Amino acid sequence: MSPLVLPLPGNEALAAKLGATIRGDVGELTVRRFPDGESYVRLRSSPQGRAVVVVASMDRPDPKFIPLLLVLETARELGARSVGLVSPYLCYMRQDRRFQEGEAISARVFPRLIARSLDWLVTVDPHLHRITDLSEVYPVPARVVHAAPVVAAWIAKEVQRPLLIGPDSESEQWVVDVARHAGAPFVILEKVRRGDRDVEISVPDVTRWREHTPVLVDDIISTGRTMVETLGHVRRAGMRAAVCVGVHGLFAPRALEELRAAGAATLVTCDSVTHTTNEIDLSAALAAATLEMLGPTKPA
Amino acid sequence: MSPLVLPLPGNEALAAKLGATIRGDVGELTVRRFPDGESYVRLRSSPQGRAVVVVASMDRPDPKFIPLLLVLETARELGARSVGLVSPYLCYMRQDRRFQEGEAISARVFPRLIARSLDWLVTVDPHLHRITDLSEVYPVPARVVHAAPVVAAWIAKEVQRPLLIGPDSESEQWVVDVARHAGAPFVILEKVRRGDRDVEISVPDVTRWREHTPVLVDDIISTGRTMVETLGHVRRAGMRAAVCVGVHGLFAPRALEELRAAGAATLVTCDSVTHTTNEIDLSAALAAATLEMLGPTKPA
Repeated sequence: MSPLVLPLPGNEALAAKLGATIRGDVGELTVRRFPDGESYVRLRSSPQGRAVVVVASMDRPDPKFIPLLLVLETARELGARSVGLVSPYLCYMRQDRRFQEGEAISARVFPRLIARSLDWLVTVDPHLHRITDLSEVYPVPARVVHAAPVVAAWIAKEVQRPLLIGPDSESEQWVVDVARHAGAPFVILEKVRRGDRDVEISVPDVTRWREHTPVLVDDIISTGRTMVETLGHVRRAGMRAAVCVGVHGLFAPRALEELRAAGAATLVTCDSVTHTTNEIDLSAALAAATLEMLGPTKPA
Repeated sequence: MSPLVLPLPGNEALAAKLGATIRGDVGELTVRRFPDGESYVRLRSSPQGRAVVVVASMDRPDPKFIPLLLVLETARELGARSVGLVSPYLCYMRQDRRFQEGEAISARVFPRLIARSLDWLVTVDPHLHRITDLSEVYPVPARVVHAAPVVAAWIAKEVQRPLLIGPDSESEQWVVDVARHAGAPFVILEKVRRGDRDVEISVPDVTRWREHTPVLVDDIISTGRTMVETLGHVRRAGMRAAVCVGVHGLFAPRALEELRAAGAATLVTCDSVTHTTNEIDLSAALAAATLEMLGPTKPA
């Protein structure tokens, strides 16, 4: 039987593209809240004997977690042959150690909690830093889709003489990868983080790149502060109007307005988190990874 | 070492009373949200070698679940001798079977998900219907605190010539118990539920009770529709102004206003869910149950 693709609310568009590519059926799922704030979940398509592919991007994860677990667990109860999760944005990858005594290391706790309900996982560029591979924290088979080639293809097609700019050393590996795929030069800035919303940037000399279009790339746009700072430096350096590219556009409150105000005339994101700035389609790459997980080598 | 009591935000008042009664230390816990919507958790008091008592009422549970799990799991990682949960209102007890094909039976799934992080559980009058005992769904030791004696004591002290009125057959067992403890007569109405917010009530003849004060008691006040309907019948039957008592006051949006408008002049709840109507103090009963769980018979 063909795989059953079940999108959580907000993931319908991506699930439709993914479903078409993997030749799956996109099933119907009801998720709503009772007046007392609890979630109601109903699978309107039977998962009996089928490989189930749940599609749920986990930006702003806390209110989504119980509904997601109810879907995963109910699919299994109702006889799914396997239950996998395509989560283009995977949450809780950022706190990967105790910076202060007593802190929860959510990047290690969360994977344990969700993996119990999963046979496999597909995601896009998780925010790996001190954790170098998803298998260090996820005890189930996992495939990471790299957005770099897709982002690079978009840049190569849409931007004239791009100069890639990575906002900090954390982004370096990723920006280098995009630059290589796009055949473009790059520079990496240095970021000093003082708090959730307090960030300062230092910029190397970019005068030799004045004829290029600066392309600011980052894996996550959350508060947008890093990109706002970088836009300021690029403008003060006398460079052309910048293009901003984020893989995961989380956009905390006011972030989009502040980015526009800072001069982000062109601001695009991948469709891993549904947003008006989505321009870069990851569905083909996600479908390829999903087919790998559903293939003959998957766990029975 | 004395037990370490850790209240999640909103549970500080109950935790203070509980902590004093069980001779525990109320510890400090930081729970906040990052700008991207993820939760940050830090235990500012060390759980090393101690029995940890987390206090977290689970009304409106979905956004609270990940922070709670981060607290429970981090307490264990940091060397807690045992990790228990006092959850005066326990969520997801209401959907206890598939009314329609494909529905998630959250009353069976949720206990599995949270019990993995617990050594024991204490709660107050869970909404048991088809599930007759908490041990059917919770695979860890659990104590249920019965609010009936405490509610009955409040009624006996505060209400002259009470007539207890249960809104439906689901409430019967509970109302009978309160009536017995209060030494008061009671009647049980019949409820027909047509949807989340659509409820109709039939009332037996109450003319012989005209000299009594009707006391409407229910385990959960959520939309308040049941109690609003019942208040209407009581008023039309020519009875005195009613006193409304709920164990768990969830109060969905507009519920309180609608209850006031329907004539609920006196409306009180237990402190299992923090609310302005809290009048009935369950902390002594919760402390007794907690001490039982922490006693020599608890799991090592």
